Amino acid sequence: MYSETVEITGHIIDSLLLPKILDDIVRHGIEFNIERLDVGKKREDPSCARIRLTAKDAEALENVLKRIRQHGATLVDEQDAALEKVEKDGVFPDNFYSTTNQQTLVRLNGRWIEVERPEMDCGVRVSADSAHAACVAISEVREGDPIVVGHRGVKVAPMPRPSKEDLFSFMSSAVSTEKPKGAVVKDIARCFQEVRYRGQKILVVGGPAIVHTGAVPHFIRLIESNYVNILFAGNALAVHDIEYALYGTSLGVYLDKGIPAEHGHENHMRAINTIRKYGGIRQAVEAGALTRGIMCACVKRGVPFLLAGSIRDDGPLPDVITDVIRAQGEMRRMLQGVSVALMVATTLHSIAVGNLLPAAVRTICIDINPAVVTKLTDRGSFQALGIVTDVEPFLRELCGELKL
Amino acid sequence: MYSETVEITGHIIDSLLLPKILDDIVRHGIEFNIERLDVGKKREDPSCARIRLTAKDAEALENVLKRIRQHGATLVDEQDAALEKVEKDGVFPDNFYSTTNQQTLVRLNGRWIEVERPEMDCGVRVSADSAHAACVAISEVREGDPIVVGHRGVKVAPMPRPSKEDLFSFMSSAVSTEKPKGAVVKDIARCFQEVRYRGQKILVVGGPAIVHTGAVPHFIRLIESNYVNILFAGNALAVHDIEYALYGTSLGVYLDKGIPAEHGHENHMRAINTIRKYGGIRQAVEAGALTRGIMCACVKRGVPFLLAGSIRDDGPLPDVITDVIRAQGEMRRMLQGVSVALMVATTLHSIAVGNLLPAAVRTICIDINPAVVTKLTDRGSFQALGIVTDVEPFLRELCGELKL
Amino acid sequence: MYSETVEITGHIIDSLLLPKILDDIVRHGIEFNIERLDVGKKREDPSCARIRLTAKDAEALENVLKRIRQHGATLVDEQDAALEKVEKDGVFPDNFYSTTNQQTLVRLNGRWIEVERPEMDCGVRVSADSAHAACVAISEVREGDPIVVGHRGVKVAPMPRPSKEDLFSFMSSAVSTEKPKGAVVKDIARCFQEVRYRGQKILVVGGPAIVHTGAVPHFIRLIESNYVNILFAGNALAVHDIEYALYGTSLGVYLDKGIPAEHGHENHMRAINTIRKYGGIRQAVEAGALTRGIMCACVKRGVPFLLAGSIRDDGPLPDVITDVIRAQGEMRRMLQGVSVALMVATTLHSIAVGNLLPAAVRTICIDINPAVVTKLTDRGSFQALGIVTDVEPFLRELCGELKL
Amino acid sequence: MYSETVEITGHIIDSLLLPKILDDIVRHGIEFNIERLDVGKKREDPSCARIRLTAKDAEALENVLKRIRQHGATLVDEQDAALEKVEKDGVFPDNFYSTTNQQTLVRLNGRWIEVERPEMDCGVRVSADSAHAACVAISEVREGDPIVVGHRGVKVAPMPRPSKEDLFSFMSSAVSTEKPKGAVVKDIARCFQEVRYRGQKILVVGGPAIVHTGAVPHFIRLIESNYVNILFAGNALAVHDIEYALYGTSLGVYLDKGIPAEHGHENHMRAINTIRKYGGIRQAVEAGALTRGIMCACVKRGVPFLLAGSIRDDGPLPDVITDVIRAQGEMRRMLQGVSVALMVATTLHSIAVGNLLPAAVRTICIDINPAVVTKLTDRGSFQALGIVTDVEPFLRELCGELKL
Repeated sequence: MYSETVEITGHIIDSLLLPKILDDIVRHGIEFNIERLDVGKKREDPSCARIRLTAKDAEALENVLKRIRQHGATLVDEQDAALEKVEKDGVFPDNFYSTTNQQTLVRLNGRWIEVERPEMDCGVRVSADSAHAACVAISEVREGDPIVVGHRGVKVAPMPRPSKEDLFSFMSSAVSTEKPKGAVVKDIARCFQEVRYRGQKILVVGGPAIVHTGAVPHFIRLIESNYVNILFAGNALAVHDIEYALYGTSLGVYLDKGIPAEHGHENHMRAINTIRKYGGIRQAVEAGALTRGIMCACVKRGVPFLLAGSIRDDGPLPDVITDVIRAQGEMRRMLQGVSVALMVATTLHSIAVGNLLPAAVRTICIDINPAVVTKLTDRGSFQALGIVTDVEPFLRELCGELKL
Repeated sequence: MYSETVEITGHIIDSLLLPKILDDIVRHGIEFNIERLDVGKKREDPSCARIRLTAKDAEALENVLKRIRQHGATLVDEQDAALEKVEKDGVFPDNFYSTTNQQTLVRLNGRWIEVERPEMDCGVRVSADSAHAACVAISEVREGDPIVVGHRGVKVAPMPRPSKEDLFSFMSSAVSTEKPKGAVVKDIARCFQEVRYRGQKILVVGGPAIVHTGAVPHFIRLIESNYVNILFAGNALAVHDIEYALYGTSLGVYLDKGIPAEHGHENHMRAINTIRKYGGIRQAVEAGALTRGIMCACVKRGVPFLLAGSIRDDGPLPDVITDVIRAQGEMRRMLQGVSVALMVATTLHSIAVGNLLPAAVRTICIDINPAVVTKLTDRGSFQALGIVTDVEPFLRELCGELKL
Repeated sequence: MYSETVEITGHIIDSLLLPKILDDIVRHGIEFNIERLDVGKKREDPSCARIRLTAKDAEALENVLKRIRQHGATLVDEQDAALEKVEKDGVFPDNFYSTTNQQTLVRLNGRWIEVERPEMDCGVRVSADSAHAACVAISEVREGDPIVVGHRGVKVAPMPRPSKEDLFSFMSSAVSTEKPKGAVVKDIARCFQEVRYRGQKILVVGGPAIVHTGAVPHFIRLIESNYVNILFAGNALAVHDIEYALYGTSLGVYLDKGIPAEHGHENHMRAINTIRKYGGIRQAVEAGALTRGIMCACVKRGVPFLLAGSIRDDGPLPDVITDVIRAQGEMRRMLQGVSVALMVATTLHSIAVGNLLPAAVRTICIDINPAVVTKLTDRGSFQALGIVTDVEPFLRELCGELKL
Repeated sequence: MYSETVEITGHIIDSLLLPKILDDIVRHGIEFNIERLDVGKKREDPSCARIRLTAKDAEALENVLKRIRQHGATLVDEQDAALEKVEKDGVFPDNFYSTTNQQTLVRLNGRWIEVERPEMDCGVRVSADSAHAACVAISEVREGDPIVVGHRGVKVAPMPRPSKEDLFSFMSSAVSTEKPKGAVVKDIARCFQEVRYRGQKILVVGGPAIVHTGAVPHFIRLIESNYVNILFAGNALAVHDIEYALYGTSLGVYLDKGIPAEHGHENHMRAINTIRKYGGIRQAVEAGALTRGIMCACVKRGVPFLLAGSIRDDGPLPDVITDVIRAQGEMRRMLQGVSVALMVATTLHSIAVGNLLPAAVRTICIDINPAVVTKLTDRGSFQALGIVTDVEPFLRELCGELKL
């Protein structure tokens, strides 16, 4: 028989943590004995439990320990995290600890250190002096880096219960085509105002439907009012925005009349060719060749943007980062300080960016296709809010609520 | 070898009629010989073709004749339509002519008579004096009724080419999530104004998402401005409208705040119970128990409504016609004079009503689910316009364009 | 200040019940004080909690009590349920208790009585001697019936935790297009075998896609092997099954070749007409006019079927119950003894039947459209298993696993 | 007034070509006069039309000419195509002719030359001696290349009418969830056999759902029987295939049991890490570390594969081409000789590859999501066949029909 004793402290009863852990233990055939349980009598009191686990099978016990650490439980006699050196660039040690996107702590020299830049599916790299630890992507790890292996000495801090006032508390499952959106849009507007007021950053990840549906003017208003601090997109958003700026069409359709232009399907290629001639979007703006649209507004307002390449790109524009791993790296660096991410009508880019975000970044996903919204909001322990709606009216209403 | 000679006249070349017919003939292994072809030299000139068909197989020839009659071709030596008497209520003669929803003519006593109330999947009943013919549903046919059998002496008038100004001409495939809707909504508004001006009728077929998405105020404005002349719906639209009128919730969710009410899921049953107590919607309005909402507006404005039952109904409200065949019959009678049908967010009722409509009624289908829109606009030769969008912003924008 | 004391007993910690209740209390601003908490030390031991609630607002306290009763909590000084007489046929007393589909108990003469035939959105009718209580639909309630009002003296028995062996325990969220279905189909087959072995009933609710996709032979095998004990469907399934039996087509498409028949779109109307001539499906089978297909197999095997009408029905067949409330009543009666419900490719009928089922009936929903599967499996506390897949291969594989 | 005379020859009546052209002319307000029309009297006879167009507006006339050239019409006095030199790498001359994916001809030195490697949204590069012309992507064009500008001297050969025996003739709109697939799968099998017999190539473009749904064994059988000649995929297909080969899971779910593995979500990262350690898939196979699965079968059978990167990639595997433009270039080169493309469950890669394919390549698209199928089969004049179905049963049945 194998045994371990764990402790867990906090609002563990009303936050469902203790029961989840017990449930998990029971489901896997482990015996438990609650050695001590101090229940807070009132709402504000924390509780504390000390539980002894007993199993016939060492592996089963290890597995449960590994899992309940994800809920913040720790061993009574916890050890330091084990480290192993990388032997080859871009390759983790065999038993590397694979991260989640939640707040994570590693025990080094007897102290719990917070892991910086939490990101899912990474490793944890420890600084030479063991004073710092940070997530590192497999493609960025280098020979000699010390990497955490195994799960001893690692724990995940449970997500704090959202306050009653928090927009994301009651709406986290608002993925619905059949709900009133007025109230939600109001709340998003309030959230945007607060983030701007606090000097934090709003990231927008956008797809070409912003242009196709005629929402360019709304989007420009958001940029000009400082509600878009970073823009991530693909070649398509920029191409159709520039097509619209140059020819009045998007995918060859006149946006004001809703009818196809003569040979309009060629316009996007002509737009790409024009920007290639100038050498880039900024250059085209500076030369006076591009005078309106989303990309132009970004250049003029100094909003940093990143266009990530995809194998279905036409062209592409010279600004597109065609190497996807380099694009991921750039996005990681640009994400610092982002507190809210608004993802509008793009599956590929939304999921890509979602993979890079810490769980603490509040994510709002807008798409007319419920499958996209579900796919994004289902990915782990995001604070994600999904809204199934049409892009143009959503952005129009958001501008209205923001008094733009 | 079997032969027949057919003639076809009109804008048969540029309207694609002649080619379609030739293509059809060729595909089925029939030989053709164009005996005469007078092509209009200019756009406004009609053309006329006389074609001799030859086949080895009498049945194959019959089949082609039957089919090309659907495009307006007639035999050079056409005969009167054959009639047979109904032997049992609700049962057609074996070989009954099964109708389409297009303008159809039957030859009686040497004259081509137009079939009244074109509706798909019906029979053609001829009056005793052979002066009139009309579509009749199988459930409404009675013993002794003379019914057209076979396809001799029946032809379908080809749909006229829509004029360039017609809203439905270029938009008939506008089923898209990625198109600008502003221009389309403008056009629908213009169409509504024209229909109202001409004293024709606008039918709205609506689902409960009108209430769930918070579009009740917009819809009431349409009713009060005489843009809704008939309302077809199911129990659910009326129930949730009344739930909202009585409790401020729809499906238990407060529409102003977007959050669930305490025990709000019971509200719709309490709303039903209230109306059942009064004996009906009109009675509840007259008693002052129901003072707002869509149904109340219909009662006060004298807009006739029909609530058709469905097996998933709760309650239902006393106004619901629980027998579906009786509901179909009532709808048929109410459809007279309808020139535009706006179908909003209801698959079941949209398809049911679509089945009853002549092809000449212009149909606009709004749904956030592209599958519903496709399903409806795909059904035969409708003049149908499908728009994939969110209900509430659509109706808001429509009211805006109508200056309501 | 208002106060009440509640008790809750059972596996309240690891089953998450106590935490859910505390969470609920806290979220609504009620103070609680855990007066006693006896935690079972081991897995098999039950726990018991006694909690005092205190609120400034009587209504808030009532609301919380009402809600936590749904989790099985009872007042320490619980009273009998209050009753009120129905004053008018089809109308509940104003404050009627609105049911869920879970196992429910009412306190009558100091004893807890189980409510028969749990069904959501009904009332609870008590027998004259107060020895029995049963759910009753609003349309079936009659003047003088004693109905439970308010929520005092009513509690919901919490769903038992599923055993590890139960198919539905780990699969309840298997709504996915991207999961291996082989294992699930195996489990369903085992479940079917067990149900048949125990003499319980399997209900199938089916849509016309069973015919359109070419799954008729598989379905007949299920009928003939006694794996379909009751069939609920609409007019369309029966019509297209008979169309296929008579003409080899479904919706006019030859199922063996996948190509449209000449004028095949008329076939379904001719099939309807044929059955109407005979007076019904059974009569057509007995007359030798209908010799194959699903409906024929049901008649020959004595499998009871119910065809419920819908406003989009063509015809309909004489067997269709065109009054939807009568159809609901018939379905309720036929549901007795059903232990598993398999719903295949029909939104309308699946939701309608889902509304009538007690939570204890295990429900399996098959559809290629994830929205339908989500819609059904989301409805309350079903033991529902949703599978997004194609109908024909699913039924083929199920037959394979059942060695048919 | 401006005038031009055009000629068009072939099966222009029954193939709908002439009427389409006349319709187009009329819709744009151009006057036409049919100067000569020789109609073939029988099916096998070609027809010939000579039409004089007159317009008030030179630009309108140009536009119509440009458009009807896409249908094969030519000016009676056609000129050579105009050429212009590229001034800067990666930039076309301003007025470059933007290609379709159809068979295209350019007139050089009075002769019509066929454009090699038709691909949409490219330019046409002419060889120094004007004897050859080929499509060239904007990213591959170099300073000094002579490029066709304007639309004079360019025409598109109309697609030949498919023969009655051709699988793609009647099925081109088979995008349906409600159709029998048995017949279609039979036809695809026959098509595969024919292509293999003729020594042409079958390209498969696949997504990870092939692995998730448990279809790996079927896919391997196709590879081993020489029915997969080239494989295009992304990182995800290869990663999950290797995850399954190494751990028995896909996305952490055991494919045989359908249940999640302990910490299975880490498996795909461990699979990536393993392959990175060996330096690539081939190296891992050669080292004996990877002994089964799709990628292993490709290596052992010598089937060339290309893994194109995407910004949502984890890792990626060392074999992935992370630069998307380089990946497009490689795909272009590998496409030579491909006669059929089977696209299975991947939107991104299907559309990317679809963009590169000539219209003459027959394309089959399998997905459970109708939106994906529609998106792909809607793209221009493909010979595309879309089937909405589940991946695993489709591939199983295809293997069955191929007797594998």
